[in-house]
Amino acid sequence: MHNKNKSSERISKLGEEVILNRLKKYMDDGQIDDDTALITALNKEIIINTDILVENIHFNKITSSPQNTGWKGVTANLSDLACSGVEDILGITVGLVVPGNTQWNWIEGVYEGINNALNQFGGKILGGDCSKGKQKILSITAIGTKGPLNLHRSNAKPGDILVTSGVHGLSKLGLELLLSDPFTTSFDLCEAVKERAIKAHQEPQPPLKALNKLISCKPKELPFKAAATDSSDGLLEAIECICKSSNCSAILEKKHIPIDKALPKEKHWTEWCLEGGEDFELIVSLPPPWAEAWLKSMPSTKAIGKIEKGLPQLRWSNGTKIQRKPTFKHF
Amino acid sequence: MHNKNKSSERISKLGEEVILNRLKKYMDDGQIDDDTALITALNKEIIINTDILVENIHFNKITSSPQNTGWKGVTANLSDLACSGVEDILGITVGLVVPGNTQWNWIEGVYEGINNALNQFGGKILGGDCSKGKQKILSITAIGTKGPLNLHRSNAKPGDILVTSGVHGLSKLGLELLLSDPFTTSFDLCEAVKERAIKAHQEPQPPLKALNKLISCKPKELPFKAAATDSSDGLLEAIECICKSSNCSAILEKKHIPIDKALPKEKHWTEWCLEGGEDFELIVSLPPPWAEAWLKSMPSTKAIGKIEKGLPQLRWSNGTKIQRKPTFKHF
Repeated sequence: MHNKNKSSERISKLGEEVILNRLKKYMDDGQIDDDTALITALNKEIIINTDILVENIHFNKITSSPQNTGWKGVTANLSDLACSGVEDILGITVGLVVPGNTQWNWIEGVYEGINNALNQFGGKILGGDCSKGKQKILSITAIGTKGPLNLHRSNAKPGDILVTSGVHGLSKLGLELLLSDPFTTSFDLCEAVKERAIKAHQEPQPPLKALNKLISCKPKELPFKAAATDSSDGLLEAIECICKSSNCSAILEKKHIPIDKALPKEKHWTEWCLEGGEDFELIVSLPPPWAEAWLKSMPSTKAIGKIEKGLPQLRWSNGTKIQRKPTFKHF
Repeated sequence: MHNKNKSSERISKLGEEVILNRLKKYMDDGQIDDDTALITALNKEIIINTDILVENIHFNKITSSPQNTGWKGVTANLSDLACSGVEDILGITVGLVVPGNTQWNWIEGVYEGINNALNQFGGKILGGDCSKGKQKILSITAIGTKGPLNLHRSNAKPGDILVTSGVHGLSKLGLELLLSDPFTTSFDLCEAVKERAIKAHQEPQPPLKALNKLISCKPKELPFKAAATDSSDGLLEAIECICKSSNCSAILEKKHIPIDKALPKEKHWTEWCLEGGEDFELIVSLPPPWAEAWLKSMPSTKAIGKIEKGLPQLRWSNGTKIQRKPTFKHF
């Protein structure tokens, strides 16, 4: 009963000190009492990334519990660190903005989600800031050490194979299921697929295992160098980013688009696969022997096309230009 | 003419790619094309801090130009790094949330202010994220390397002298002048003081020089260890934080409170000095020989009291308990 009352308390009644005290259990020991957090990563290069989630743009009450929001704030960042070859996740800082009438259990839920993700993937809450505002906003900065692999969007070369670490479109399906999009109910989707899709949207996995497999399967004769990004803004967007940064062209195989086998073969599903976004898979451009090794060592990977000389354009293997239908616009 | 039109463009008409392209000139080379930024700080410990500025809470149209907002977003962070003994500022990430009807020149102004601060104090823009939202929000994370000095709030010891790097209350006076508080006009303040006060509020200086002086003047026989925080939330708040973290008591000298000499001697001004906030001075608890050395080597410093055994309380030297009047509440 006491807990229930505490959960529904409006944070405007609490004040910063009470909030900070209640959140202490989630924080790294010894960081509470200082203005900054100290990180020891001697002899390692550091990579850093910031991602912002805004209520009613990136999440809302219907599609995301506070735990989901905290989880996603962390894992979206870790996905970006994975694209840059992260070795160890050192930790995150948490910037939180909430209206004064926000209930305490929303904040606690966000920190639970953050902590669940850090417990699973590594790192600690190193500090942060909170403030009142009109709208809920979670701004997370993650830092990690860089491993041996030099992953840059600009490293793609003609002759490379484009390989993705997994299937695409499930997150978008999950979102539409949560929003009760009538299109999703016009198909006879089995419950297991629906569950997987909702989980893909609410609790995405950063591609850290895929990165480790990619590193461990590298043929000895090749340098630790490849082009990569993640598909958080959509599969085609990711490939286009690699092409622009590397100044080359991509040829995709229509029959190899990485759509989940359980989904109906229909134009709409293909679009969601190509442009749905928030899939958080690695898209990597690799020399053929390395691509082959990764495809062999990780069953979820799929070769989807190749890199050629030419303008930064995407074409199907029959020569037609791929028309983009951007579904992700933040402005 | 062309520039004028560009400045007043609403960002909702631009899209993320155009915004990112226009901001390229402010970014560190090579970070644009990757998902994360790489930092090389081999053999150094890293310190990290996040601060959020929310429109109509921390800044507004009347008190702060976009350049001021960008400058403050950086310098508030650097002030926190200074309290932890920063050596080199490595850089920042910038999280920006703005309504779709925001004009381009507001965003450009913020980045100009950010860049001015980084040019003066060191570091680069390492990356970030931007999104649409109901309200303007600037979330900055700064990282730097740690120097030789171990500064922690919990390092204060009975017998220490409390020393501040400079005067307090000017920032609050500047704020009230900008807000046309009638109280400020009831005194005959000279123009030079008004200008200094407004500058203190709009373009605060992080106490990096004060930190360097503190390090260079340390008596050889003492370890590189002291208690410190900054007075961004007010002078008394800073001293209370040190007392709580170090579990000791502070005795302050009323006649030594660090108020600017140009200000009238009146109760209200004293309150602004003690609780005004946003002064960004170092408050340091030091063994007497070190305190003396710092006071000698830096004219702006002032000894304001001492640390004693006892409960984490603040008292005047006549024994009366100091009553807090918090002026800074973010919830």
